[in-house]
Formats: sequence, structure tokens, C-alpha cells
Amino acid sequence: MSSRLVGVGVGPGDPDLVTVKALRVLRSADVVFLPVMDLDTPGRAEAVVRAHLGADPRLRRVVFALDEPAGAPSAARESAWDAAGREVAGAVADLAPAGAVADLAPAGATVAFATIGDPNIYSTFTYLAQTVAALVPGLEVETVPGITAMQDLAARSGTVLVEGTESLGLLPLTAGLDRLRQALADHDTVVAYKGGRVLPAVLRLLTDAGRLDDAVYGAGLGLAGEDIRPAGEVDAGESAPYLSTVLVPARRVGRGGKL
Amino acid sequence: MSSRLVGVGVGPGDPDLVTVKALRVLRSADVVFLPVMDLDTPGRAEAVVRAHLGADPRLRRVVFALDEPAGAPSAARESAWDAAGREVAGAVADLAPAGAVADLAPAGATVAFATIGDPNIYSTFTYLAQTVAALVPGLEVETVPGITAMQDLAARSGTVLVEGTESLGLLPLTAGLDRLRQALADHDTVVAYKGGRVLPAVLRLLTDAGRLDDAVYGAGLGLAGEDIRPAGEVDAGESAPYLSTVLVPARRVGRGGKL
Repeated sequence: MSSRLVGVGVGPGDPDLVTVKALRVLRSADVVFLPVMDLDTPGRAEAVVRAHLGADPRLRRVVFALDEPAGAPSAARESAWDAAGREVAGAVADLAPAGAVADLAPAGATVAFATIGDPNIYSTFTYLAQTVAALVPGLEVETVPGITAMQDLAARSGTVLVEGTESLGLLPLTAGLDRLRQALADHDTVVAYKGGRVLPAVLRLLTDAGRLDDAVYGAGLGLAGEDIRPAGEVDAGESAPYLSTVLVPARRVGRGGKL
Repeated sequence: MSSRLVGVGVGPGDPDLVTVKALRVLRSADVVFLPVMDLDTPGRAEAVVRAHLGADPRLRRVVFALDEPAGAPSAARESAWDAAGREVAGAVADLAPAGAVADLAPAGATVAFATIGDPNIYSTFTYLAQTVAALVPGLEVETVPGITAMQDLAARSGTVLVEGTESLGLLPLTAGLDRLRQALADHDTVVAYKGGRVLPAVLRLLTDAGRLDDAVYGAGLGLAGEDIRPAGEVDAGESAPYLSTVLVPARRVGRGGKL
């Protein structure tokens, strides 16, 4: 059997928002990697995983550079990704004895990588999996979906994302404000991630488009410092965390975006 | 305490894709409503709920007309929604004794409504909640997010939905093929729901746009009859179920849409 690398979405931060399948994979994997900014500080995915698995010896931190506002990968970040990929590939190799004949080898090792949100939506797992797959011939890559910040913010703020024939545009603000302006023109509902550093410009844009009133701002969802407010109550002078979400619901006749 | 109506997303069909929070609400609610097309046939949400709760006496079927291809609500469907809303509202009233003084009343009743996918994304729960809230003054409406078919199809087909600065457009094909054409022009990745009845036209449109090769088709995700294929392998003459998904991933240099 081949070795497996499984990207496990653990949801936006609330430990209750992991799926039964995610827990099953995390509990049965040979090793569970937890992405962190530095080895001494637990990451957001780690907090969710430890809420369920505690001080499990199979858990291992791996330093992983977060996405950056500029969008395009920097050399330093690419180097951090490569190092993380080599570390995970090394763990796969250690678990699969060298020289084992495929047919005689024991059941292939399973290495899990916990990731906030969903592993197929703006996830560091995408980059990691490419690096590890290039280093480990025959590696099977799988993912387990997770609840996204968009869905959590909709639920916590009582906002319907889409109904009937409405459409939704999802984009990171690292793609530029013009993409947000275009999405507001093309779609009923728009969700913008990673807008912390450009929040004042986003608020102005929503005001100009007449869409500020129904919009919702969210950061730290499910964490101690959770901040969910109508976007109109956010001060343009405030500094917002990079990983924040702005949800602009469809204009719905007679009732706004709320239930 | 007020009575609560909680829309619980149970994911796309695989019982393992429910969240810990969804199970907690389903297990603690006074009544759990399960939407069905007719009272003698279990629905898709019911199958997921019963996989965890079995023959629990708190489970109650309620007839609920599915969304229809035409998009705009028909009179018959609206009438079915109203009847379902009255039934759920009646259950809330039965659980909260008439004439109870708010301060002296026991803890408010919790009525759960299980819904496939996420209760804020093209969900029948949106319509139900509006009807029940109009009938029950002071009702608190909450939702628990659930994994969507889009996320499940991405995971099962090994397709990255969005990475880096890519954007995503999500729409139901009941909105018309022009909306799909526009979304393909505006977005890196496009996901189209409810395309069963117009699938041949969708395949032609993807071919003309040069996007057929990476596109993935999925139906019955997580169920016994699961059907996941490259869209290019779907015969234009096939009849497809209404609740099907077409995923058109971003064109990514050097590696297509797959990991």
C-alpha cells in the first residue's frame, strides 16, 4: 500500500465545527502535522486539534509561512514552504521502511496535515501537497473538507449567503480592489477574505456601491477575541487582522440580508 | 427564555461529514424535523441524521417541496412551504406552554430542522425560517453550518477550488446559462449547481469556452449511487439528476486543476 498524505480541514476555529470524518482521520493517522508560524507558538489549527486530541504524541508542529498580502509568493516564503514539504516528506519516508517491497509492505503510513477552514479553499495545504508529492513517488494525496470562515460568519451573524437563483462571488482582497468592485457588479452576494490591511478602502468602496448597510465584518471567528459587527460600525481608522472576512449579502426585497 | 429554531446543516450526504456541533444540536433538540418529498420516503438529510440517531422518537418528517428548475416559486411549492412552516410553528407552540410568563417559563424549547449541505447556501431552511418566524413572535433563529456539495466534490475528485489570488463564482443553473458564461469570463474557478436538466447545454458551453478538460461532474456525493467523472466523459445524451454539481477549476500553469 502507498503512503497517504491527508489534508484535514478543521474548520474556522470553533472546535465543535470539525467533522466526524476529520476527527476519525486525526485520531488514526500515524503523524499529525500542525502548521505554526514559529515552533514555540501554537497555531490556530493546533488549538482545534488539541481541543479533541490533547497532548497526543503523534502531533508535530511544522513551521509554515502564512500567505502574504502581496499575493505572489516571496522567496523567503517559498523557502519556508519547501522546508515544510521536506519535513513532511521525511516523516512519510521514516514511516515506510526503506527497501520494502510494495506487495510485502505493511499497510501504508498515513500522515495528516491539519489546516484551518477547508484544504481546497485558499489553503496552505495546496502548496504543501505539491512539494511532498514531488519528493515521495506514489504518494496518495487526499483531503477532508472543513467548514469555511464564510459559512461560520453567515451562521453567527444570521446572514443568508445565497437563496433561489442568487449567485456568489468569493475572492481574497490580495487580488486587488478592482476585483471586489467587479464582483459586486456581477454577483448578488460577495465574500472577501484577507482584507485586514485594506479595510478602510473596502469600507469606502462598499459605501460608494451602496452596499455598506447590509455588509457584515468578522474576525477571530469562534476564538476568544471574536469580532463580528455590521461593516457600517467598523471605524475606517481601525486596524483589522489580516485574516478577516467581509460578507456583502444579496439585496433582497423587503428584508435585507438577515433572516 | 425564547424558543429556538435551529437550521442544522448535515453536509452533502456522507454521515461522516456532519460536524460535532450539528450532532450536539440534533441530540439535544426537543424535536428534529426532517424534510421529505412525501411522508413515506426518507429524505437525504434524514439518512444522515438516522445514521447517528437511529430510530429516535424526537425525529419527525415534514413534507417540503424541493426547489424547482424554473427558479421562481410556483403556487404549489409556496403552499407546501407554508404548510411546513405552520407544522414547525405548531411544534414550537406545543413545546412552549400557552400563557407561560416569560420569566417563569422553563428553558425555551429547541426545534431543529436538518438540511442537506449548509443552511445558508441555497437551502430550504431559509424559506422555512421566514414562515415560522412570522408565526412565532420572539422566535430565535440560528443555523449550524454544514459541508457543501462543492467542497465534497473538490475533495473526492482531488480538485483544488481556489488558491492564492484566484476568485470563485458559485451559481445555480436555474439562473440561466448566460450567468454561467459570464462567471467563466469573470472568475478563475466556477461551480454550478442544479444543472441536471440542462447538462447537454452546459457541456457545449464548457467546450466552446475551452474549459471542458479540467471540469468535474458530480452527483449523489457520498451516497450509494455516487457518480464523479471528468465532465468530458459525461455523454451529452445522459439524463442527470437535478441536484448535480459541475466544478470548473482555475487554469493553473503546468498542472491543470488537480493536485
